[in-house]
Amino acid sequence: MTPKETLLREVLDRIADKWTLLVIEELQLDTPTRFSVLQRKVGGVSQKMLTKTLRQLERDGLVTRTVHAEVPPRVEYRLTRLGNSLGEAVCGLWVWVEKHLNTVARARQGFDGRA
Amino acid sequence: MTPKETLLREVLDRIADKWTLLVIEELQLDTPTRFSVLQRKVGGVSQKMLTKTLRQLERDGLVTRTVHAEVPPRVEYRLTRLGNSLGEAVCGLWVWVEKHLNTVARARQGFDGRA
Repeated sequence: MTPKETLLREVLDRIADKWTLLVIEELQLDTPTRFSVLQRKVGGVSQKMLTKTLRQLERDGLVTRTVHAEVPPRVEYRLTRLGNSLGEAVCGLWVWVEKHLNTVARARQGFDGRA
Repeated sequence: MTPKETLLREVLDRIADKWTLLVIEELQLDTPTRFSVLQRKVGGVSQKMLTKTLRQLERDGLVTRTVHAEVPPRVEYRLTRLGNSLGEAVCGLWVWVEKHLNTVARARQGFDGRA
């Protein structure tokens, strides 16, 4: 693989991740969102996993993390412009899943019935 | 979560997977492809992981597996129409990755430099 391909794989690997996609989806409303609110909205994600996901998104330049000097400190996450553009690209995937959910469910039933 | 949300998550979880996306990408040329050829093209995937990925794609109705009665038997994989439509939805994600690869790389360097 060329260095570009390696990086392509790596970035794809990061993005093609359930929690990453769900966090981006939630943040796309473009309101700064607190950790606890995000955790509630992205149901089923552990605190550890959400922390890891947000940190990776921040590292990739997709999310900003702002600490407000309050007591207790308020930390908010927001998509960057780059993150927003990714959100739009991911949107097609969501639309597909929504649209073909039942077809996939039927395919599974058929497969499991034959197996 | 409603049953629909649960299924949505599950399907997304399946699709938002590096190997799944890479296999779909390779099969999009719409030529029946043998396992060994696919393994070579999707560099870095183990035989076990490719077998698992293809089986899940077949189960979800995205890929067909055809066994030709030869000696030794020739097994070929091909995207279904449903798989092709997913491939098109995924395409936007690939385009994004290609386009913003360098920006992400720079963001990472900056983040790692600050950390």
